[in-house]
Amino acid sequence: MDLNCPVPITDYERVLLAHGGGGKLMHQLIDQMIYQELRNEFLDQNHDGAILPINENKMAFTTDSFVVSPIFFPGGDIGDLAINGTINDLVCCGAKPLYLSLGFIIEEGLLMEDLWRVIQSIKKAVKKAGVKIVTGDTKVVEKGKGDGIFINTSGIGELLPNQNINPVNCKAGDVIIINGGIAEHGIAIISKREELQFETNIKSDSAALNSMMQKVFEKCDNLHVLRDPTRGGLASTLNEIAQLSNTGISLVEKKIPIDESVKGACELLGFDPLYVANEGKILLILPKADADKVIDIMKQYPEGKNTKIIGEVTENHPGKVQLETVIGSKRIVDMISGEQLPRIC
Amino acid sequence: MDLNCPVPITDYERVLLAHGGGGKLMHQLIDQMIYQELRNEFLDQNHDGAILPINENKMAFTTDSFVVSPIFFPGGDIGDLAINGTINDLVCCGAKPLYLSLGFIIEEGLLMEDLWRVIQSIKKAVKKAGVKIVTGDTKVVEKGKGDGIFINTSGIGELLPNQNINPVNCKAGDVIIINGGIAEHGIAIISKREELQFETNIKSDSAALNSMMQKVFEKCDNLHVLRDPTRGGLASTLNEIAQLSNTGISLVEKKIPIDESVKGACELLGFDPLYVANEGKILLILPKADADKVIDIMKQYPEGKNTKIIGEVTENHPGKVQLETVIGSKRIVDMISGEQLPRIC
Repeated sequence: MDLNCPVPITDYERVLLAHGGGGKLMHQLIDQMIYQELRNEFLDQNHDGAILPINENKMAFTTDSFVVSPIFFPGGDIGDLAINGTINDLVCCGAKPLYLSLGFIIEEGLLMEDLWRVIQSIKKAVKKAGVKIVTGDTKVVEKGKGDGIFINTSGIGELLPNQNINPVNCKAGDVIIINGGIAEHGIAIISKREELQFETNIKSDSAALNSMMQKVFEKCDNLHVLRDPTRGGLASTLNEIAQLSNTGISLVEKKIPIDESVKGACELLGFDPLYVANEGKILLILPKADADKVIDIMKQYPEGKNTKIIGEVTENHPGKVQLETVIGSKRIVDMISGEQLPRIC
Repeated sequence: MDLNCPVPITDYERVLLAHGGGGKLMHQLIDQMIYQELRNEFLDQNHDGAILPINENKMAFTTDSFVVSPIFFPGGDIGDLAINGTINDLVCCGAKPLYLSLGFIIEEGLLMEDLWRVIQSIKKAVKKAGVKIVTGDTKVVEKGKGDGIFINTSGIGELLPNQNINPVNCKAGDVIIINGGIAEHGIAIISKREELQFETNIKSDSAALNSMMQKVFEKCDNLHVLRDPTRGGLASTLNEIAQLSNTGISLVEKKIPIDESVKGACELLGFDPLYVANEGKILLILPKADADKVIDIMKQYPEGKNTKIIGEVTENHPGKVQLETVIGSKRIVDMISGEQLPRIC
């Protein structure tokens, strides 16, 4: 069979963990092997989901599989993570999340009680976020062919007519806002995984951001870009936006919110928090003139109380992210190349 | 934590392979632990997917994870199976399939060439069926924590306004139609898995049925029930319909199409073909008066050339499926209880 193989196959004979890490290797795999082969006007949108025309209306549609290990961690579990993650992807399309599907791949031998805890967590998360699970599927694989439980959630949301959100809308002069401290999810997972004992109990920031963002959508129709900095962290997500929009992004390190204990854990473990995953954070890129109004709204919500401007979009260094460090020097912050923390979501 | 555990947890401490087998145990798990907990008006529809109101229009939304082993088999692979399976679920809702999501969970170490073959197969299947992959996700898990590749496809279709398809619409006097020979997919998989050598090369029937069914939808607005007899086979699917509609279903064994080599393989392996999975078959339940017209249409398509009436709906034995055997005796055909062939899809 002539497979007419593109580059990645010759670069790597086999799939590496790093191909799922949210960084360069993952983008290479997806762009060259999947995107290229299956491309159409919807995949070309480069969103966290697809914007679909359904009659007069536009709908957002997104999918995410969750393989986080361990499945229970401080601040959440694979169940609410799967709900919140897909809700946030819809929000990042500028949509109101409505309907979710739920697909379980269970490893034979999973404790029924663990499955039950995950289902209860899903139940609580969908109730809190005001969405509905409308369809599902359950598969079981033999012991040793899975890992406890994997969950796919796909979601449908109604696109808000006053919003036009897309990475390419990113413009010089725009400000970059985040709704709170970074790296909490990744550190919560790794601390549990390695059974490290920190003095403070770092919790995942896993949260659905649709209520807060719904209010932002109502009051501001000038949002340019929304993205949730999950796998690959803040740095990888901003690199993706910079590349897609061909603008430069300048961050100011001292403005980036980070909890002291998270910072300490990152130092201890040798992780750069800019690359550590978040699961309840959203990046907003919008004109400076609208920033105060949006920040005021966000600060009224528990998940937005530490909202801050962390940088701006510039005409300089297009396609790159530059960080002004605490000591005043400037350095380019690249997309993560491989895998810092596997199976973070 | 008081988990307020329902029955299945006390019955089984751990999830068994049989909980994914399409039979009684799976229905027990789903009904009591998932459905019950997450229920709403959409889950109550009991469809292969959910029927959602999107403005004036109604849309069908469905999800399916594919964990078939091996991933390559005679007549298909996990790629086209994942596309065809979700397309057929949308068709069974009475919808025209439009948009699909694609979620990969890849085990570290999968050969890039195998991934490429799967992607090429997906590409071919979406093109053939006239649908589009609009959004996706790729995760990688460590070696030994997955099995090559698992695929989730979720799908959105436009509900055809002249159709009202639902298991509860099943009525005494209706006829039951199938579009060809049963048990081909399951036997193709198992023959490959066990490395058995049959004289004939049995191929999976994996196929998208949307083109054929689109024509049926255009010409007939009197279809009562559509279902694809996948996991658990013909017998389990008809039992599900009989139970949901509280009608009796009578099958005539000699009318059920089955390829001679498939029949031989089933005998050799000790499988009852009524319980073996299909991936390109659809059951239609409709008034007798419309049957000839529908059969004539279906026979014009390669995937419908062996379409046959195999039984009828009756007021007798409500909730049960009865088979008139080749030798003329009658027996009740129950839903599969556990697992006959794990990981068939």
